[in-house]
Amino acid sequence: MVVEHVDIAVTPGREEEFEAAFVRGREVLAEAEGFRWARLLRQIEAPSSFLVLIGWDTLEAHTVGFRESELFGQWRAVVGPFFAVPPTVVHYAGELTPAGDA
Amino acid sequence: MVVEHVDIAVTPGREEEFEAAFVRGREVLAEAEGFRWARLLRQIEAPSSFLVLIGWDTLEAHTVGFRESELFGQWRAVVGPFFAVPPTVVHYAGELTPAGDA
Repeated sequence: MVVEHVDIAVTPGREEEFEAAFVRGREVLAEAEGFRWARLLRQIEAPSSFLVLIGWDTLEAHTVGFRESELFGQWRAVVGPFFAVPPTVVHYAGELTPAGDA
Repeated sequence: MVVEHVDIAVTPGREEEFEAAFVRGREVLAEAEGFRWARLLRQIEAPSSFLVLIGWDTLEAHTVGFRESELFGQWRAVVGPFFAVPPTVVHYAGELTPAGDA
């Protein structure tokens, strides 16, 4: 399993709108081949900063399958308007399946 | 629940030693009051970079209870020798309990 790690700086004052948009964005992600789960976490020290963690079957399920599909545009259309700057994305190898997810 | 997020740059060439040390370090963490779970992830783009995620009951369980206990010194003694630079720590609010952990 691969974990996509996305650091998102949200425009200050729009945090609650972003959280609501993420619920819709997650439904888009869930349509992607190789998607396993997604979680949204809000930073305590800097509450306009969020961390999105997404579990994928493989690295390519994200970097090729998802990013080259029309789902990527849908995801960005839903959550992108709340980004203060382009997000930083890296990937990690390791086991992190959250409880309640397959 | 609070998730401690630790970015760790390991001295290149010592990654496997660090991974072995983390197994022992995790046992130290698990003795702390308010500890719930810990996971180690290795970055794909930069394989000397690791992410440690630790679930705590509260922020203070980590920042006060753990850091002011002798367990903190034990943890750093086990894993610290492999750090290339001091790690970066932030905390997130949100649900991320991994499968298999209470």
